Parts: sequence; C-alpha cells; structure tokens
Amino acid sequence: MKYLKIFSPATVANVSCGFDSLGLAIDSVGDEMTFTKTEEKGVRITEITGANLPLNAKENAAGAVALAMLEKHPVDFGIEMTMHKGFSPGSGLGSSAASAAGAAFGVNQFLGNPFSQLELTKFAMIGEETACGSAIADNVSAAIYGGFVLVRSYEPLDIIKIPVPTELRVVAIHPQVEVKTKDSRDVLPKEVPLKSAITQWANLAGLISGLHTENYELISNSLTDIIVEPARKHLIPHFDVVKSEALKAGALGAGISGAGPTIFALCKGDTIANDVFASIENAYKNIKIDFNMHRSKINTEGIKILEER
Amino acid sequence: MKYLKIFSPATVANVSCGFDSLGLAIDSVGDEMTFTKTEEKGVRITEITGANLPLNAKENAAGAVALAMLEKHPVDFGIEMTMHKGFSPGSGLGSSAASAAGAAFGVNQFLGNPFSQLELTKFAMIGEETACGSAIADNVSAAIYGGFVLVRSYEPLDIIKIPVPTELRVVAIHPQVEVKTKDSRDVLPKEVPLKSAITQWANLAGLISGLHTENYELISNSLTDIIVEPARKHLIPHFDVVKSEALKAGALGAGISGAGPTIFALCKGDTIANDVFASIENAYKNIKIDFNMHRSKINTEGIKILEER
Repeated sequence: MKYLKIFSPATVANVSCGFDSLGLAIDSVGDEMTFTKTEEKGVRITEITGANLPLNAKENAAGAVALAMLEKHPVDFGIEMTMHKGFSPGSGLGSSAASAAGAAFGVNQFLGNPFSQLELTKFAMIGEETACGSAIADNVSAAIYGGFVLVRSYEPLDIIKIPVPTELRVVAIHPQVEVKTKDSRDVLPKEVPLKSAITQWANLAGLISGLHTENYELISNSLTDIIVEPARKHLIPHFDVVKSEALKAGALGAGISGAGPTIFALCKGDTIANDVFASIENAYKNIKIDFNMHRSKINTEGIKILEER
Repeated sequence: MKYLKIFSPATVANVSCGFDSLGLAIDSVGDEMTFTKTEEKGVRITEITGANLPLNAKENAAGAVALAMLEKHPVDFGIEMTMHKGFSPGSGLGSSAASAAGAAFGVNQFLGNPFSQLELTKFAMIGEETACGSAIADNVSAAIYGGFVLVRSYEPLDIIKIPVPTELRVVAIHPQVEVKTKDSRDVLPKEVPLKSAITQWANLAGLISGLHTENYELISNSLTDIIVEPARKHLIPHFDVVKSEALKAGALGAGISGAGPTIFALCKGDTIANDVFASIENAYKNIKIDFNMHRSKINTEGIKILEER
C-alpha cells in the first residue's frame, strides 16, 4: 500500500450519566485523513484544512501518535499525512481525538496492523495528551471502536464496546462560542454527595442495560446527569432552552457533549431526529450566536477506509 | 385456593460497585411461608419458627405488608400466615425482605393477582419500613423478580431485571456477629471524591454489561467497590482474609452482602464455587467466631410456589 484515505468520526464523550466513562461515535461528522508512504523516513504533515493546527508533527495530535508508533515499530519508510477537518476544534466533539485516532488507525495499516484496537487507543491517547494536556480515552476509543464505548478502567486500560440500538440517532448543535477546558474543569465539584453518586450510577447502569436490550424507554429514563451537567451548563449559552426543546420534540435525552459547547440529543428514529433538529434550530435562530448543527446515525464501525492503493 | 405454601429467597443487596442499586436472589436459602384463607377477616400470624419476631401483624414485616394489601384491595375473607425462617435476621441477606416480599406475593395470589411485580415491590417496601425503619427496595425487588435487579430510581420506582449468566454461583459466609444498622450507616461517607464516584460507576457499567453478555472476565474485573467496602469492612471480622481466600480460590469477586456481616463471593461454575466455599470455611475455622455458610445458584425466578390447594 502506497496511499490510504480514511474517515475518522467525531465523538460524544461524557454521555449524560456516563461522565468520564461513556462515549459514542457519530456517523456523518468527522475528519478525512490521507497517508502516503515515502522513501524518506519519519512523519510529515503536509496539509491541514478546516482548522488552524500545527504542521510540526511533534506538536500535532496526529503527528505525535504517528511518531510514537514508528518509534515502537521501526520501519524503513516514512509517512506523509494530510488532514481535512470536518468539524471545529474546541467543539466538544472530539476534534483532536478524531485526528489522533485516525493517525493510529492509518499508520497501523502501513505497518501491517501489528496493533490491537486497545493498543491503538493507547497510542491515540498520546495525541490527546499533545493536544489537550491530558490522555483521556473516551473520545479516541469511541472513534477507534465505533458505537458506544465504556472506559471501564484506565489502570489497566479496559475498553468495553456496548451495543447500539438500531434506531438510535444523534442530533447535535455546536454554538460558536469558546468554552475553555480549564473553565469546564474548574466548575466540576471535587466531591459529590454519596446520594447523588448513587443516583448517577443507578442511571448509568440503567442506560447500559437499555443499550443492551434496545429498551428506548429505559434509555430515556436513564439519560440524566445530576452531577456534571448542573455544574457546567451555565458555560453553554441557552443550554436549558436547547435541552427543553429537544425533549419537547421527542428526544430520549440531551446533554453536554464532552466539555461543550456542543449539546447532543439522542433520538429514536429519523422522524423524531428531524423534529428535534428543527426545534433546536428554530430555538437557536433567535439567539445572536452562530451555530452548526449535525444529525446522524451512530457510527458502529469506527474509522472507515475510503480509498487505498 | 384455601392454602398456599411458598419459598421466598434470601438476597444480596449492595452487590459491590452497585451499592444501593444492585441486588440478587439466592436460590438455596430463604423462608418458607404458608397462607390460609379464613372466614374471619384480617391478618393473623399464627407461627414463626427460626427467629424471634413479633406475631402482631402490625409490627411484623410480613404482617404489615398483608394488612396494607387488604386495605388497598378489600375482600370478605381473612388470611392466616406462618413463617419458617431459613436464615437469621441481621445476617445481611435480606431476612425481613424475604418475609415482606413473600407476604406480598402470597396475599396477591389470594386476591387473584391484581398487583404487578412493581406494585408488589412497593407493598413489600412497607414491610422493610416496619422491620428496618427505611423502605429500601433492593432486597425485596430481588426476591420478587429473581435474578439480578437494578433499582434504577425510587421516584418513580423503577426496577430493571438484569440477565443472570448461567454458570454464576454465589458462596456466602455469615459470621455470627451483630452489625448494627446504625453503625453500618454511620461509617458511610456523606461525600465522595468525584474521581472515586467515576471509578465506581464505570465498574458498575462494566458489571451490567458483563451480566448482559455472560462475560465472566468483565464481571470479575468490575466487581470492586472502592467507596462503601473500605468504609464498612472493619465492622466485619476478618473480612480481608475471607475476601482474599475467595479470590485466591478463583472467585470472580467478593464483597459485603447488604450491610453485613455476611460476605458473599460470586463464582463461575460449581467446581470453583466448591473450592471457594472450602477455602473460606477453612480460613474461618481457626477464628473463634461461629459462622454459617451457603453455596447456591442464583435464583432466577423469584418467589416459588411450593404447594397450593
């Protein structure tokens, strides 16, 4: 193989009650990346479109991943990458994760696939560390595994794939405002009442069971976050309006995607997803903040190969 | 029907990471209860064996449940009950719950089964309130539904049945010491670090997924409780020895049953369950505390009818 083109999906982390544990991959939104084998050794990023990101491989999420993989698995060739960002960094949809996971997947193909999905996740976490300063796993694992993923444990890293009910759809709105990672971390409570923690874990347990059994009512009842959402939602303009419109239009639930500002809603079926999309769009049109919207199936296969030769 | 004899199972609540949320029913341990239709209206308890409990219906967990049901659904007959306790109150195996759940199930049969399992759970919670002072749902719902149950929510009450992997076995040791409910409540932290809560809910999510997929490795990895067990285990003599022996002998995990002092271990298959049983028994034989031991399948059907005429 001399050339590879892939699609690496956007992802929603912190799915409601699954803060820091549960992520999902979006089907219709993501990055396109190309990889070209070169005689010259090393990693070069030759083009990035759609976002202003460092071309220097060491400073780039995707570049850092590729370098780490080639260090672990030395070869007598090099790799040139291009990245075409399909959504913005800072959206809360795992922009750096898509690049990092894409790089891990793509480079692995050129090496003859020596690394498992779990190992690719670990490499991709190096990219998260480069871009965000912390090696979180939920976005990158969702991109690599596809579907819903549970980060059960970091030490050792344990990623569990959770089934995706067939009619599940995601609608997301990305208000064009900046939420600083530091702010979204600073508002988190250091301690939580045991009673609240129990409510949260009972809901997460219900959500996991509902996903396994395609029980949309249970999924809907369980999609609540009484710990992080109340602390963070004031950072996101008109969060309550969006959530309330989504629920009124029939969404199963809604919450903050990652650290925001994107707000996601989960819906059963295309008709309701369309209604939820329209309701959120209408509500936000009257607000003087630009926004992007997405509507998609859940991506169940993870990163996709678009072209290889 | 004039006469009914039932078996109401012992139950394990607070299954490791599922504190206050996840319970399971034990197959081989429980109470036998009889119900006889009488011309005289009202509820009478005529005999209790195996434990020293009030015969006055209003003060008895089973009696209080039966009275509440007959008040809600008046009939022109009365019910006489006998209770034969197969395990001790204060064991942490849901003794009052077995009586309360058994009464709810039994009386419902005489009324022509007007009440759903969820409604029976609510009635049985009245018995828990009578016996323990708080209307907890995890033991009574496990007895009524059988298998694993998740108490996802109290307001409204939402009980979710979780599948039972076929080879799962439970081993339990009941050291003959008293753990006062007040003490076991008092040692609970009021607040927990968010980081610990996340670890706990990620494990509970893993456990639920493992139960749905019969993934014993995942069940084993997830069966940890970093919040309640560390706070409570010093109330239970030689907890660490028992747990360590259970794990060394191949148990998937072990923890405190309910508020203790019973310690339970979950095992894959009869051979390992036998080994775990023997290891725990050996370890405890050298300690000058009497104990009972149990080894059982998981009860998947809940309360069983033994005889009716």
